[in-house]
Amino acid sequence: MKALVVGGSGYTGGELLRLLLNHPKVSEVGATSRKHSGRYVWEVHQNLRGAYDGKFSEYKEGKVDADVVFLALPHGQSMEHAPRLVEKGVKVVDLSADYRIGDVELFEKSYVKHKSPELLERAVYGLPELFRDDIRKADLVANPGCYPTAAILSIAPLQKFKDSMDLRVIVDSKSGTSGAGATPTESLHHCEVAGNLKPYKVTGHRHQPEMEHILRRMMPGLSVSFTPTLMPVVRGILSNTHVFCDFDVVDLAEHFGDFYKGERFIRIVETATTKNVLCSNYCDISVHYDNEKDRGLFISAIDNLVKGAAGQAVQNMNLVMGYQEDEGLAELPYHP
Amino acid sequence: MKALVVGGSGYTGGELLRLLLNHPKVSEVGATSRKHSGRYVWEVHQNLRGAYDGKFSEYKEGKVDADVVFLALPHGQSMEHAPRLVEKGVKVVDLSADYRIGDVELFEKSYVKHKSPELLERAVYGLPELFRDDIRKADLVANPGCYPTAAILSIAPLQKFKDSMDLRVIVDSKSGTSGAGATPTESLHHCEVAGNLKPYKVTGHRHQPEMEHILRRMMPGLSVSFTPTLMPVVRGILSNTHVFCDFDVVDLAEHFGDFYKGERFIRIVETATTKNVLCSNYCDISVHYDNEKDRGLFISAIDNLVKGAAGQAVQNMNLVMGYQEDEGLAELPYHP
Amino acid sequence: MKALVVGGSGYTGGELLRLLLNHPKVSEVGATSRKHSGRYVWEVHQNLRGAYDGKFSEYKEGKVDADVVFLALPHGQSMEHAPRLVEKGVKVVDLSADYRIGDVELFEKSYVKHKSPELLERAVYGLPELFRDDIRKADLVANPGCYPTAAILSIAPLQKFKDSMDLRVIVDSKSGTSGAGATPTESLHHCEVAGNLKPYKVTGHRHQPEMEHILRRMMPGLSVSFTPTLMPVVRGILSNTHVFCDFDVVDLAEHFGDFYKGERFIRIVETATTKNVLCSNYCDISVHYDNEKDRGLFISAIDNLVKGAAGQAVQNMNLVMGYQEDEGLAELPYHP
Amino acid sequence: MKALVVGGSGYTGGELLRLLLNHPKVSEVGATSRKHSGRYVWEVHQNLRGAYDGKFSEYKEGKVDADVVFLALPHGQSMEHAPRLVEKGVKVVDLSADYRIGDVELFEKSYVKHKSPELLERAVYGLPELFRDDIRKADLVANPGCYPTAAILSIAPLQKFKDSMDLRVIVDSKSGTSGAGATPTESLHHCEVAGNLKPYKVTGHRHQPEMEHILRRMMPGLSVSFTPTLMPVVRGILSNTHVFCDFDVVDLAEHFGDFYKGERFIRIVETATTKNVLCSNYCDISVHYDNEKDRGLFISAIDNLVKGAAGQAVQNMNLVMGYQEDEGLAELPYHP
Repeated sequence: MKALVVGGSGYTGGELLRLLLNHPKVSEVGATSRKHSGRYVWEVHQNLRGAYDGKFSEYKEGKVDADVVFLALPHGQSMEHAPRLVEKGVKVVDLSADYRIGDVELFEKSYVKHKSPELLERAVYGLPELFRDDIRKADLVANPGCYPTAAILSIAPLQKFKDSMDLRVIVDSKSGTSGAGATPTESLHHCEVAGNLKPYKVTGHRHQPEMEHILRRMMPGLSVSFTPTLMPVVRGILSNTHVFCDFDVVDLAEHFGDFYKGERFIRIVETATTKNVLCSNYCDISVHYDNEKDRGLFISAIDNLVKGAAGQAVQNMNLVMGYQEDEGLAELPYHP
Repeated sequence: MKALVVGGSGYTGGELLRLLLNHPKVSEVGATSRKHSGRYVWEVHQNLRGAYDGKFSEYKEGKVDADVVFLALPHGQSMEHAPRLVEKGVKVVDLSADYRIGDVELFEKSYVKHKSPELLERAVYGLPELFRDDIRKADLVANPGCYPTAAILSIAPLQKFKDSMDLRVIVDSKSGTSGAGATPTESLHHCEVAGNLKPYKVTGHRHQPEMEHILRRMMPGLSVSFTPTLMPVVRGILSNTHVFCDFDVVDLAEHFGDFYKGERFIRIVETATTKNVLCSNYCDISVHYDNEKDRGLFISAIDNLVKGAAGQAVQNMNLVMGYQEDEGLAELPYHP
Repeated sequence: MKALVVGGSGYTGGELLRLLLNHPKVSEVGATSRKHSGRYVWEVHQNLRGAYDGKFSEYKEGKVDADVVFLALPHGQSMEHAPRLVEKGVKVVDLSADYRIGDVELFEKSYVKHKSPELLERAVYGLPELFRDDIRKADLVANPGCYPTAAILSIAPLQKFKDSMDLRVIVDSKSGTSGAGATPTESLHHCEVAGNLKPYKVTGHRHQPEMEHILRRMMPGLSVSFTPTLMPVVRGILSNTHVFCDFDVVDLAEHFGDFYKGERFIRIVETATTKNVLCSNYCDISVHYDNEKDRGLFISAIDNLVKGAAGQAVQNMNLVMGYQEDEGLAELPYHP
Repeated sequence: MKALVVGGSGYTGGELLRLLLNHPKVSEVGATSRKHSGRYVWEVHQNLRGAYDGKFSEYKEGKVDADVVFLALPHGQSMEHAPRLVEKGVKVVDLSADYRIGDVELFEKSYVKHKSPELLERAVYGLPELFRDDIRKADLVANPGCYPTAAILSIAPLQKFKDSMDLRVIVDSKSGTSGAGATPTESLHHCEVAGNLKPYKVTGHRHQPEMEHILRRMMPGLSVSFTPTLMPVVRGILSNTHVFCDFDVVDLAEHFGDFYKGERFIRIVETATTKNVLCSNYCDISVHYDNEKDRGLFISAIDNLVKGAAGQAVQNMNLVMGYQEDEGLAELPYHP
């Protein structure tokens, strides 16, 4: 099959290309970039040198010849292309936020005015472990944000306790810098990042409404307080969720194990760390309980560019196309 | 005056020596080490080469000739020396946990059997911003733990709200590796730390009872849920405290500013980051409020080896000796 | 086919297992470890969790049931096992130094007394780009050291100039810490490595005779002066070779391109950097010439655990077994 | 005395301000910045918050009221201001390259057209360990480049061997990113730097003629081949100089010790590493000799922002003003 990455010059685009080039079902990969149109892809993504001799083209709607199109565009731009692609019968996996939040008002509060609200209902939130069946039937998949992927996967199993738990959960997350993209800025300048622990958007990050919106489908009334911190690593998100509840009634780890039974990309571990999932599509989750405080602590770790972006997008593509879900995602985490 | 560092070969001991060597009131500095007795101090602390030609000696109680003794020993060992030093009239600043928790039972639950419980009452918790007057009169100062220093300073101003706030506060902290000491272990091996975000002792860290014990003096009934994560940086602690309360009634930042008015080493900033305090005795605190969730977020940043250990110990020495509190602590944070 | 990794608990062993588990021709993978015998492999290599349910066994010569055995043992231990394995008809890829240097005297000068010198002649130096034909016929392959891999590949093409160049070449290399192994030591303690640039064994590193010995086959009289520096990164070797010669007579980059024409894992690039080869079997080489000084500069970059160890070992296995040379080595470097 | 930092918003400017604020002879510090004029200095250099309440002003020649002016400007801009300052009787320490190379032609080959060549002869190269007497009498000091500082200090003692050594020396240097300044660029983006070893300007770096020009004063005919590599650390330069010579006739380390006898900021050590000099004005030098190859290896380590820039500038100011040379430079390297 043929895959096209629209906006392929960023970090997420590069990771997508890396994965698609080794995907057994993908026979042809294309990439567009406004800025780099005409240049060899390996000039921008030098790691792909020798493995891919394609060039970036300019995106032209009429010329799209692909079974699946990945939109790796900034928020607000996907919505300009998605409607006609869907109309044309092309399967779309959108890596921007444009179709993640089904509620227009809520979306517009955090982002921009929506240009194709009619598609919102049709779009499926692409978290396969929770919405696999819907994704299989979807023609437009909204690939989740990186923080929401980590947080939602570690909170969803708590729906069993929704009536007894304190619904005000706290999500304290840490992220590497690749999630912020390839554009040089002062706050991503090496000298400013190295050796620093730096909180940002500590009360108003746009991933907060996304988490809350999705989780409320399972746990009405849930309130998510979200605070991210930028860490001096390149890849990896670690997400600590603190919840007050008398969880003592069950074996929490066992419950999580049952909830994710058979899931290829979820591992319930003793202590989740980002290093154990690097460059893989795994989400590691560890489950802790402080009996004295009735505090549950749910830690999840992902590679933000894989399970938090490009890997999950390929997982969604696999579902949409009817392939085996882990096709092309067999790469094991490297260590050390 | 003469200062002696007992157990001077670790990271905290080295930092103490570095500070004491440039302290205007300190005319003589000694250091003991069982392991390195007889070697030049600069052979172990090579950064001090050329600046200090003393040797490590063996600790001998009878031979102590110092006005102030710093005990930079592992927990459980300070209590073997402190009683006789105090008896002798020497001022003691203990950097271990041995005298931090005034409640023997609570101490023994987290540490070991106490060998000089009679001194617990006499020991003063060495957080100058909160207990300055007591420290001035003390002959035994229990220098606070690194995590507690950061956490307590960011929580103490909330005592004003103790009747209206949810007393179950969550402290989600991140630390560099120097806090774990100079002894090589697998979990501190460079390959395991670099690029990793790694939670540890997520519900049972020994600094939790210390925080709670001290804070309850001001806020009875306070419950602290504490989770630390090891970060791939050498120095720095960042502490996020999440508190549910309708703080809307006051200007929180102003309140913190008033609370710490005139404090030389506390800076109320927009967003606390570890980089801005590195190698200095500052504790930066930023104050945030999520109106929608009634969540207060209090972020503090310290250098764990300075304000979190050796710097604060010198600050305590200054108080105990009647010097100006910031004597020898003028070093500004370096950047970048 | 069946593969066995003897000494599988270190970093090189773990990387080998990671590669073999995804190798299309390998149907069965075993691992031995004296220390961890009886434990699940994923307990030690947690990145492999969920992907491999084998346990470490104790190595027992009589019980070896494998087509290829990888010896990932410390120097001096491989020579105890290799002779009987070879005798038995098992193909051996030895990742230690034991069979790299064909000259017993030279070997013993840098390492230990050799216990099976009779095998030295039979062993083939496993640098496929230079000795492919011999490797295909070998039953014992001596997998090259990490520094020698990078250095030799960047120097070998200079054999054309051996009569006109200054034969005293300088190899100034930089390495990440994973090459030093998984055992915690003071010099690999995170606090000592992070932020540090640290030369070591600057005139007497054991890889120097290996480089010289192999290169002299092509360039008699060559003298290699080798100095390594430890860098605060986990993976990667960068090797700068400085050579005085009037190279102006040719287009050096073109010459290197011709020399390595068709080589799957060699890329001649503008400027070699370690990041562009991470987690891959590539060796990137860049070729520079300072006309004014008649100085040639040849920079090579590899991932020390892949092309510098486990990846090259798999490449050698492929040759020995008659498979396609890049089988199981398709993983592209990740970025960023 | 009064000091003014012209161009005070960069990393070098910030470091200068940090040092000057704690300098016992400096009673007043000013800072100019075109970009940040009118803003508090601590808004840009947040580490200085609470320690300095000055604002950046616009540079106005007529208004300069200072005993010493530090020009921390990009190359090509200092030469616009220096002439009139000198004329005015103000002492100038220029941290740009504008007056480092006494040969106009050579300067213009690497930089730009010189606008005040008449001052070149009057300017003194500010490497106190070599040109102390001239600096004392100077009114315009050209503060050396960071790489040249490290290289020249490790090569100068070789002048004794200038008739017997191979005059083609190789300088293979490694640097942290702070030397490249505070302006965000793709090559200094955290994701591109972290985990990478990246050579740059490998044959044509502008510091090469500076090294050669200065060293030739002592060693006519010397040829320096210089190659720098960017390392994922913030501060620190490590410089390896390789020289072929039969040095066996002397004890090299002793010779270096004698050469730098009494020098406050030079330490001859076993192995120079950047960590041991961080945040200090030290230059550590280690001396090695490979007897078999007749290769001398001279390794030097500095903090590029201190001994490689701001610290050395203060050292020069002290000389120019007749203060004790180490005034305000007592800060010891921090560790770890």
